[in-house]
Amino acid sequence: MQNRLPVELSKSYRLLNHGPTVLVSSAHQGATNIMAASWSMPLDFLPPKICVVIDRKTLTRELVDASGEFALNIPSRALAETTLAVGSKSGRDGNKFAELGLHTFAATKIAAPLLEGCVGWLECRVISEPHIQEKYDLFIGEIIAAWADPRAFKDGHWSFETGSSRSIHYIAGGNFFETGEAFEVTAN
Amino acid sequence: MQNRLPVELSKSYRLLNHGPTVLVSSAHQGATNIMAASWSMPLDFLPPKICVVIDRKTLTRELVDASGEFALNIPSRALAETTLAVGSKSGRDGNKFAELGLHTFAATKIAAPLLEGCVGWLECRVISEPHIQEKYDLFIGEIIAAWADPRAFKDGHWSFETGSSRSIHYIAGGNFFETGEAFEVTAN
Repeated sequence: MQNRLPVELSKSYRLLNHGPTVLVSSAHQGATNIMAASWSMPLDFLPPKICVVIDRKTLTRELVDASGEFALNIPSRALAETTLAVGSKSGRDGNKFAELGLHTFAATKIAAPLLEGCVGWLECRVISEPHIQEKYDLFIGEIIAAWADPRAFKDGHWSFETGSSRSIHYIAGGNFFETGEAFEVTAN
Repeated sequence: MQNRLPVELSKSYRLLNHGPTVLVSSAHQGATNIMAASWSMPLDFLPPKICVVIDRKTLTRELVDASGEFALNIPSRALAETTLAVGSKSGRDGNKFAELGLHTFAATKIAAPLLEGCVGWLECRVISEPHIQEKYDLFIGEIIAAWADPRAFKDGHWSFETGSSRSIHYIAGGNFFETGEAFEVTAN
């Protein structure tokens, strides 16, 4: 069972602020899907909003357009192969959760399933902006619930402890960077 | 003098794909500025487009609105203090380049200066989308020229060699992650 704690909405942007690759999960009328997305970012602090690019050719797009909801799941390095796999396959060729043997748990505010083994999860409701959705495949979502694995993120701070694994940053092909060393600088 | 090579436009999204923190530089009628931005992402491959959030209260916003141009500079870890500093000060209180002793070099397609010591630079022209600019401070730019320090990015690939330093990912406060270990996974 997934180890997770709620994240305050005012701190939820911090799950995405360092630019990790995310997995977009979605559901509509019993159909579910999950895909990889390198292109997401925070858009506002409170109410917290995010942007994500959801290509018009994807099944995810169809489910998000129909449901007005999606989740951003933040995969750990242990899920890098899964990230590549769900970014390569189409949900139209078969349910990826079933084919890849992925375990999920229920979100609290939306129907989209959340992927086990991730370090954070953002439940989002689409803020309808038809022009940029149609022209750029660009979606704005409000974060309405947020969760994190407390071994990775707790009390508003990342702390990748032994036992969890770090978030990842997609480059191209099968190539990623792991989130690296944390460091602090002070203003002069 | 800055060591840099041009990056093919078709590969320029790769400078931003792993979610580094960027510095937005801008210029208009002799006034220049630079600020930090954690919230940017690629939006399209070719012609390459990016998104970035530019707060309405900033001098950068004024210069970008007036000029229709900006550059995204990708700082290395050696520039983390500078990143924090240009993210904390306002250009309205004095020119940050002068106050912080920052060295720049000329862009090729736009007036905004490019910051020395970065690992990559994207020269961008604003694609006017007044509704999202006004409602969300969200800007779309087309990348019209791209550069990288060849010790960090060459032939379309990152390779942080000795002598360069890695890109950085802002969290909050003075806290960052360094871009970590590169790894490759294969599809099954």
